[in-house]
This record gives sequence, structure tokens and C-alpha cells, in this order.
Amino acid sequence: MVDWNRHYAGRASRMGASEIRELLKLLDQPDIISFAGGIPDPALFPTSAIAAAHSRILSDPVRARIALQYSVSEGYLPLRQWIAGYMSGLGIACSAEHILITSGSQQALDFIGKLLVAPGDQVLTARPTYLGALQALSAYEPSYGLLPRRGDNREATAPAQPGRATALGYVMPDFENPTGISLDLPARQALLAAAAALDLPLIEDAAYEALRYDGEALPSLLALESARTGDIDQGRVVYCGTFSKTVVPGLRLGWVVAPVPVIRRLVLIKQASDLHTQTLSQMVMHEVAAETFPDCLGPIRATYRARRDAMLAALSAAMPMGVSWTRPQGGMFIWLTLPAGSDAAVLLQQAVSEARIAFVPGRAFHADGSGANTLRLSFSRAEPVQITEGIGRLGALLRRQAQSAA
Amino acid sequence: MVDWNRHYAGRASRMGASEIRELLKLLDQPDIISFAGGIPDPALFPTSAIAAAHSRILSDPVRARIALQYSVSEGYLPLRQWIAGYMSGLGIACSAEHILITSGSQQALDFIGKLLVAPGDQVLTARPTYLGALQALSAYEPSYGLLPRRGDNREATAPAQPGRATALGYVMPDFENPTGISLDLPARQALLAAAAALDLPLIEDAAYEALRYDGEALPSLLALESARTGDIDQGRVVYCGTFSKTVVPGLRLGWVVAPVPVIRRLVLIKQASDLHTQTLSQMVMHEVAAETFPDCLGPIRATYRARRDAMLAALSAAMPMGVSWTRPQGGMFIWLTLPAGSDAAVLLQQAVSEARIAFVPGRAFHADGSGANTLRLSFSRAEPVQITEGIGRLGALLRRQAQSAA
Repeated sequence: MVDWNRHYAGRASRMGASEIRELLKLLDQPDIISFAGGIPDPALFPTSAIAAAHSRILSDPVRARIALQYSVSEGYLPLRQWIAGYMSGLGIACSAEHILITSGSQQALDFIGKLLVAPGDQVLTARPTYLGALQALSAYEPSYGLLPRRGDNREATAPAQPGRATALGYVMPDFENPTGISLDLPARQALLAAAAALDLPLIEDAAYEALRYDGEALPSLLALESARTGDIDQGRVVYCGTFSKTVVPGLRLGWVVAPVPVIRRLVLIKQASDLHTQTLSQMVMHEVAAETFPDCLGPIRATYRARRDAMLAALSAAMPMGVSWTRPQGGMFIWLTLPAGSDAAVLLQQAVSEARIAFVPGRAFHADGSGANTLRLSFSRAEPVQITEGIGRLGALLRRQAQSAA
Repeated sequence: MVDWNRHYAGRASRMGASEIRELLKLLDQPDIISFAGGIPDPALFPTSAIAAAHSRILSDPVRARIALQYSVSEGYLPLRQWIAGYMSGLGIACSAEHILITSGSQQALDFIGKLLVAPGDQVLTARPTYLGALQALSAYEPSYGLLPRRGDNREATAPAQPGRATALGYVMPDFENPTGISLDLPARQALLAAAAALDLPLIEDAAYEALRYDGEALPSLLALESARTGDIDQGRVVYCGTFSKTVVPGLRLGWVVAPVPVIRRLVLIKQASDLHTQTLSQMVMHEVAAETFPDCLGPIRATYRARRDAMLAALSAAMPMGVSWTRPQGGMFIWLTLPAGSDAAVLLQQAVSEARIAFVPGRAFHADGSGANTLRLSFSRAEPVQITEGIGRLGALLRRQAQSAA
């Protein structure tokens, strides 16, 4: 028998299963109220527009051949042009040559790691940060340090470890996964200044950018950097966008906006990694996006805003003393901090068996294994009435525990 | 301005553009007869079956939600089950747990490299070998050695370099890209014995397996190894299959068959790299494959067989003395060897400008930069009459050159 463990490259030891992906299996039990997966509500999917676009494209012999044949690694040009227009609406002057289509923004994070991270390099992130980014980048064997930043409710943190090459900083400025926190304008400017001082490439993950429910939209890091340098090609920001939260995740379509030399390198990586993203989906998304944006955003925001409001109200009503949480202006997540010494992983088992609710324990989002007393609640998939019920059950469970400990 | 070259990881220096991908741009010129890209003829695509499956799935609300939502990294279970049945028909007893769906077999090669290749490891291949495999694996910074093998027309080659860890052997046993050569049964058995002696994982790329035009089908390395060890989980072969040559390439669907522990590792890599392959395409492919296999293979084989025959006849009629070529039993390629000292890259420029034909110079398929006097001809995309005309023009060009040199 082959001893496969002898054959795995060193990086394989850095690859573990996502607790979230394992938790998604709990969603199959219909009586569980799940606040676990950060997944969109399928009731919001533009299914008939997607079906109609498939039908139009596949019934046109010329377009069907393009859709089903091998294609270019950069992505489908009309979709790249549409995205360039969308980005211009966000204050970022760019053209199709600044854009690579990826199979979801998860693939963008993988490719950026492949391009920029050598084993032992430092990667700077918030702590906690997006688990998928840690998974994608860990394959390239970095160590992790803290990104110097100021957030809505956090002070500037410790500087990076000295004496090690620093490959990149990763940040989600809007409604970050998992905390829901956004960087305010001074924090964005301070982060760009710090990155410039460190000569640090900054990866801006804009997955939730379009899901703002209150407050004023803030310019992206890419927009601020392009304004400062006068030209997108002069900047240090690599921007990752996605259709997964605004249209559908299942078509697996995201994009990178970056200086042309970086895009050219990422195209080579794309070619070597999977040749190109599915062309039919790109053609469909081009038609659906042109047809539905920006009007599609209103109902999406209204739905999730109501759910966020329901969750914040339920938390205020149900949580015992000593529990705190964030108050996000958008996105899909609220971050809960339990009293010191609590273990959210243990709580999850009780929550599933006793209260029939699910969430994600916070430790997975911490590169250093801290955060045992934190957890992530997603409000994207449950109706307000279920949210009220589920958070009520969680509060009752926590109060019972506090009483039995007292 | 950011000096991005300072920021790239060392592996980036191993990533170059594919000459083939650049050459594909020549196909846009309608008067060029192209023998360059190894791409299928879109006239053979089952477009109406694909359109009908999309329409059925997207008009069913339950299935549409599954198709457009996030899904599992392993791939769509009914498609994995269909593939397990297809593999059983090829003499490989396996189940869905042995199968991972990938975004084309190019992605399988990338993931296998990520799992098995550490910087400086040796990777053993034929020389020449599939350019896409060199591109995918080179990102993990191996050195390259020669795979010990015997082919239809090649003797056993030099052993691997001593004193270096050997990560894997890569081989395409049927109608390999670029030479069209297949391994006969003794060569397959000898390769498996050599791999066992070296404790070497073997990557079997079966991209052209279904495209046999003459001769008897031979068991795959995976089938031979499973028969020898009595159990797929005991073997050392990781098998890569694809729908790109038998259905369509544009849906980007391939698969890996391997022992369960290897599949579990590859699933973690899939999850970190792009979460999962597009679900809608997997559901569509499941229906199309169930509906069209194996009957779809007859017309595909008949079409390409006629084109291969036309190319072999044209080569016999048109080539001057000193030029030799392979006589493949299947696949899409014939490999041409020019007299020593010739440079196929120079010839290509003349062929495009003077003869309006295109092919791929052979050097790109050689990890060591040799092979300047070789070239790859694909017969998959041109009609027999165009093949006769194009090969005639190439022969005339070579004869003119031979005369002016004499």
C-alpha cells in the first residue's frame, strides 16, 4: 500500500477542512435555524433572467459555439467591459485590460497568493479575518501578522513582525466577514499610508460592497489609491469583486481589478490553473447584469436590512449581561463576543442539540487560534420571525448556563 | 510606482505564456488553415441536448436553487456516480467517493501539483510532453527528469536524476499530446513496475482515451494497477479524465479518480482554491452524458478518423525526404520531425506568411528546451480537403527550403 503521507508536499500540512463547510451539512436538517453559512437567500436569485439568457445564447448557433468552445484566459470581453463600467460607477476609472474574470473571488485569492506569497513570507490580516482567505493563502505557507489599521471600534494594532519579508496585506473594508465591521474613511487613508510606508501590496476583498443598508457609501481602497496616484496602474491595491452576493454564487463568477502588469501575471496563472472560466456563464452573467443592475440591489438590500434589524433587536432583547456584538451597516454578519473563558465550539454543540440553532465558532477566523469566546451569526438566510425565535433560544441557553455557573 | 517584480514569489519566474494560446489568435484570420490548437470541432457539440438540459433544470424551482446556490467541493453527486459507472465500463471498479469533479482536467493537474510537488522535487515526464502539464506543475517549482518508459517507437530512456526527491511521474498513455503515440501493453506494465520500484505516484492523463480510431483499446494504467493490487485504494495511479474532447470544453468539466485519501486531500485543495465547480454545468453534464453516451462517440471518432487519414495521406504525398512523422491510432495530433538543424519556430513564421497555415513548434513541449526541429500538427479542426491543401502547402514550403539550401 502506498504511504501517501510520505508523498505530500509540505504545504499540504497547512490545508484543513473548513468548519463552515462541515457545518453546512447541518442545514439539511429542516428544524435547525441556521445562522452559520454566509450564503445568499435563493429566493433573491434572478432565476428567470438567468434561464432566459441561457436559452437565448444556446439557441443562437454562432453564440452557442463561442459559449461551448475553449476560450481566452482573461475572460469574456463584454463581461470585462461591463465590470469596468460598474467599477467606474464606484469611482474607479479602469478598462477591460485591468480586469481578470475568476471562478468566484475565492479563486482570485488563490491566484494572488500564488503570485505574491513565498513560503515564510508574512501575510498581514485583521484578526479575526475571512476564513476563506486564510485557507487560500495558507497553501503558499506564509506566517501571519496583524495588519496595521483602525476600524470603527478597534484601535491600531501591533505592527508586523520585524525581519521577515511581507508579501501582502489582506482586508475587507466593507462589512467584513466575519465581524460585519467597516473601515471608516480615516482608517482607509491610514491603511493606504501604512501600506505605502511598508511598500505593501494590499488585497481589497469587496465581496459585500454592494450590500450597504445604512450610512453613506465610502470609497474603496482602490478608488482612494487611484485618486492619490492619479492612475490605477500606479497603485498598490488589488481589488477582488464577485457576483456571488448580488446575483448568484453557483455560476462561480468573480473578478480582479489591478494594475495591468499584475493582471498579465494573473492571466498566466489562470491559464496554467484551469485555462479559463466557463464561457457560457460569463455570457449569461453579462446579459443578466446588464439587464438587472442596479435595480436588483434594492430588493436584496431591503430583505437583508430587515433581517439584520430583526437580529439586532432580538440580540438586545435576549442576550444576558457580558455578551457583546457588532452593529454592522451592511453585509451578512454580526459578531458576538461571549464572556472571557467561554468556548463557542462547546456552545455550538449545545446550541444544535438543545436549541436547534447553528452558528460558526470564531476560532476558525483567527490565524493564531485565539478567539475561543467569539462566534459569527449570519442573518442572510433566515426570515425575521425565525431570527427572533433562534436568537431567543440562544439567549435562553446562555442565560441557563450563566445561572448554573453562578 | 510600485515595482511589482520585487513582490512576485519565486515561482512566478516559472510561469510563461503558452505559445499555443498566443497562436490561437491566428485562428481569427479566416484564410489561415490551422493545425495549431488541439481543440474539438464545434460542429460535433451536442448543443441542443445542452440547451434542453439547461432549460429543464432552470425551469424546475427546486433544481434551479440547487444549481445556482453554493455547493459541495467534491462535486455534484449524481455526476460523480455517472462517472463511476463510466469508469467501471473501462475496467475500473470505483465509486463516487473515488471521484472529484474539477474545472477541466487542467485544474486537476494544478491541484495534483499543489498536493505532491515541493520546490526542487523532480517530476518525471516523457519528452516531449503535454505543455499544459508543464505549465500547471511548473508553478510548484520542480526540476524535470525523464520518465522510464517504452513506447510504440521509443526505447526506454535514461533514469531519473539520482539524489533528488521525485514527486510524481506524469504520462498520457493514449494518443499523447503532442506526439499521438500510445503506450502498448508491455510498456504500461513496465511503467507500473518502474513506478512501484521508485515508490512513485503516477499521474495518468486520459484526455484522449475515448478517441481511438484503430486497434484494440488497452487497459488504462489505473485499471492495470487496480487489477494488480486488487483494490483501487491500494494503487499509486491518479487518473485525470475530461468531458472536453467528447462533449464540450467550454463547460470546463473534468474529474480525478484516485484512492480515497488522495481524493480527500484534493477536496481540501479544491475548497481553498475555488470552493467548487459550477453546479449548473455539472447538473447539465450529468443529463447530457446519461443521454448521449456512448452513442455520441461514433460520429466523433468517424469525423476525426477521416481527418487523421487525410493528414497521413497528405504527409506521404507532400513531405520531402528527411521529414518523419508519427502514425497515431487516435487523438488529435501528428508529430513531425524535421531534419536536424531545422527550427520549427522560424518555419512557423514562414508558414503563416507564405503558406497561410499554422502549427505549433515543438520546443514548447520540451521541459529542457530541446526539440527545435519538431512540430505538432492537429487534425481535429480542419476538413479533409483543407488538410490536404494545407499539408500540401507545408510540403511545398519545405521542398523550396531544401532546394535553396542545396
